Amino acid sequence: MTTPNPRRTIDELKALRALTGDENGAQRVAFTDKWVAAREFLKERLAELPVEVHTDPAGNLWATLRGDSERELLIGGHLDSVPNGGWLDGCLNVLAGLEVLRRINAQYGGKPPVTVRLVDWADEEGARFGRSLYGSSAASGYFDVDQMAKLHDRDGVSLADALLKVGVTLADAPQAQAELKHAAAYLELHIEQGPVLEGLRLPLGAVLGTVGVERHTITFHGQAAHSGSTPMNVRRDAFLAAGRFGQEIYTLAERYGGVCTVGSVKTLPGIVTSVVETCELTLDQRHLNAESLAAMWQDAQAAATRFAEEGGCTVTFADLWKIEPILFDPELIDACEASILEVVPTSHRLPSGPLHDAAEVARAGVPTVMLFVQSLRGISHNKIEDTLEEHLELCVLALDKLADKAVAWIKR
Amino acid sequence: MTTPNPRRTIDELKALRALTGDENGAQRVAFTDKWVAAREFLKERLAELPVEVHTDPAGNLWATLRGDSERELLIGGHLDSVPNGGWLDGCLNVLAGLEVLRRINAQYGGKPPVTVRLVDWADEEGARFGRSLYGSSAASGYFDVDQMAKLHDRDGVSLADALLKVGVTLADAPQAQAELKHAAAYLELHIEQGPVLEGLRLPLGAVLGTVGVERHTITFHGQAAHSGSTPMNVRRDAFLAAGRFGQEIYTLAERYGGVCTVGSVKTLPGIVTSVVETCELTLDQRHLNAESLAAMWQDAQAAATRFAEEGGCTVTFADLWKIEPILFDPELIDACEASILEVVPTSHRLPSGPLHDAAEVARAGVPTVMLFVQSLRGISHNKIEDTLEEHLELCVLALDKLADKAVAWIKR
Repeated sequence: MTTPNPRRTIDELKALRALTGDENGAQRVAFTDKWVAAREFLKERLAELPVEVHTDPAGNLWATLRGDSERELLIGGHLDSVPNGGWLDGCLNVLAGLEVLRRINAQYGGKPPVTVRLVDWADEEGARFGRSLYGSSAASGYFDVDQMAKLHDRDGVSLADALLKVGVTLADAPQAQAELKHAAAYLELHIEQGPVLEGLRLPLGAVLGTVGVERHTITFHGQAAHSGSTPMNVRRDAFLAAGRFGQEIYTLAERYGGVCTVGSVKTLPGIVTSVVETCELTLDQRHLNAESLAAMWQDAQAAATRFAEEGGCTVTFADLWKIEPILFDPELIDACEASILEVVPTSHRLPSGPLHDAAEVARAGVPTVMLFVQSLRGISHNKIEDTLEEHLELCVLALDKLADKAVAWIKR
Repeated sequence: MTTPNPRRTIDELKALRALTGDENGAQRVAFTDKWVAAREFLKERLAELPVEVHTDPAGNLWATLRGDSERELLIGGHLDSVPNGGWLDGCLNVLAGLEVLRRINAQYGGKPPVTVRLVDWADEEGARFGRSLYGSSAASGYFDVDQMAKLHDRDGVSLADALLKVGVTLADAPQAQAELKHAAAYLELHIEQGPVLEGLRLPLGAVLGTVGVERHTITFHGQAAHSGSTPMNVRRDAFLAAGRFGQEIYTLAERYGGVCTVGSVKTLPGIVTSVVETCELTLDQRHLNAESLAAMWQDAQAAATRFAEEGGCTVTFADLWKIEPILFDPELIDACEASILEVVPTSHRLPSGPLHDAAEVARAGVPTVMLFVQSLRGISHNKIEDTLEEHLELCVLALDKLADKAVAWIKR
């Protein structure tokens, strides 16, 4: 049996870093020149394989190795990065997938039992236009052209114009749904981007799904008052309520076993000489269980309302965004765990806190699973993002074994 | 004996409001066209009196009624307002002082026993350049030209350029100190800008001094981390510490009998998907007793350090500004109280939480006192700032009686 060469994947990751990064980190923001250069780098390598390469109407890049069956195994990732990003986020998946494609091609002499495809999703990060999962959502059908047409970057360039520059017509993007017509399984390897596996001293984990997200703004309304002349006992201090809420989220998260984050806090009038009249904060809540997520958000509203009332304030809530939990395929999760156990002694099942293209593919109805590899310090979206090279080698091996099992599973 | 006409003061306040306010409140921000218009309004009225009018090198406007003695009674206020300010803050003092000047002129046929001067201080509020008491500090000598030269408004216009537009050269401003050379007493009437007198159902109070202020930034330093992938128990959340501190200030204020305010809170990276790495807040602490003020600030630092450590964060402190408590003249405080008791049955002694130009004059060594009139709801710096008209009439009468006593006191 042929085997993949994980060392080559690491070399290619480093070559890509040299080509598209700088002293501040990865600069492969979608639809920019560096991103185009990253895709050229990938295409050069794909040209060495007997695969059909094309870009779909949304701008996703597909490499297809035709097999005996038209049923398809998809392996996906994304070459795009945030500005000043890490060297692994997204492109590890693509380059590890490339290595798996090489191994399958070699093993089956260019004609595997099922069709195997590698996809480089466009603009997973949404770093420039504020909307992540652009390309995979076009393929999944969870994509609103009119909403997308409203997006602009900070320089006022529209997403539609940025797409045109790379040869994509926004209105045609939903035609990318055709790409999933024969998809029978989707695999995605990713760095964990969190500290769980590191904390457990485990290199690899099987991902249960992506957590649901409830994202809201919470605004406490008090009364501006002079910092010198207003006795403490008559203040209606919006920040007092907000500060109490900032503590309460730790209780909420513990109660339900989810995570809650206050990420942005703004104060008005926001001057040193006034009690805070208005304090607006963002709350991001995540849970793998939809009912627990809903209850956690209910409790958050109740707590915010109580803190507001106790401080003579009022509170209002506004929706920012939400997505339901997306559970991966139980059989593929088992296969993922089995693959991990073929390369290391211990596996771990965990949810993914961050969203990934895999969530879009899964909610399009394609059986999906993700494989996580440990992140050092749990840090991502930063030039110090890193993973031990021995773990990178292990994750390529595990992904390869998972692909093998998935091919067999599709053929069953 | 001639008497002042408080009704005229109210009419003039309303006329000034019509001239320099809009639907959002007073718009007499220093050095703007509306402020210049307010000064023209004052000058037109001063032109009806036998006073010398001039602008000093800092841009303060002086009207001088020469008396038998060159020793001077000063009555001061400020026509400038914050943006969207109230109709009384600052200009009540100027226009009530104008009325007192009229009465003294009439009573003494243009030649009172001592020289009496009305001053309209420039830029008391500091609303545009962030530095209050500009004009009075130039006169008091607590004024650093180099520091002032660094100030810019939010559009990048320097204070120096804004001053040039109204004919003032910043480097010359300290020459305004000459104006206080013969000052023997300084009186300032002001709305309380707080709820104390209203709470006591008293129209008028004698002010003991201005409280000392310790003003600092406190910055909590944690670690940015992904809101979805970072378990709660490994977070180093700068906002958690800041929120706890926002509550703690109420304990600190109660412990010492002062006031503490967190007025501005900023979060970095300040995005919905990240734990807060850096949270910078402003802390304003005030107390009439210097030792209590110092202890309150010490305790604040200890609490902030504790909250930081307990949350895996660090904390740094930076000075913004400080001023010691400035106590007014005991004999003038007595005179103020006696004057109040000539127009109402009950007086009250209280410190001033807000700073006023009177503090600068007092620390220049001029015997000083302030007279407070009740503010409705304790609200100022807002278009809903208000005082009952019957109380406005009473305060003009009390200021006039206080001026009478001060003239006698200077002559003693």
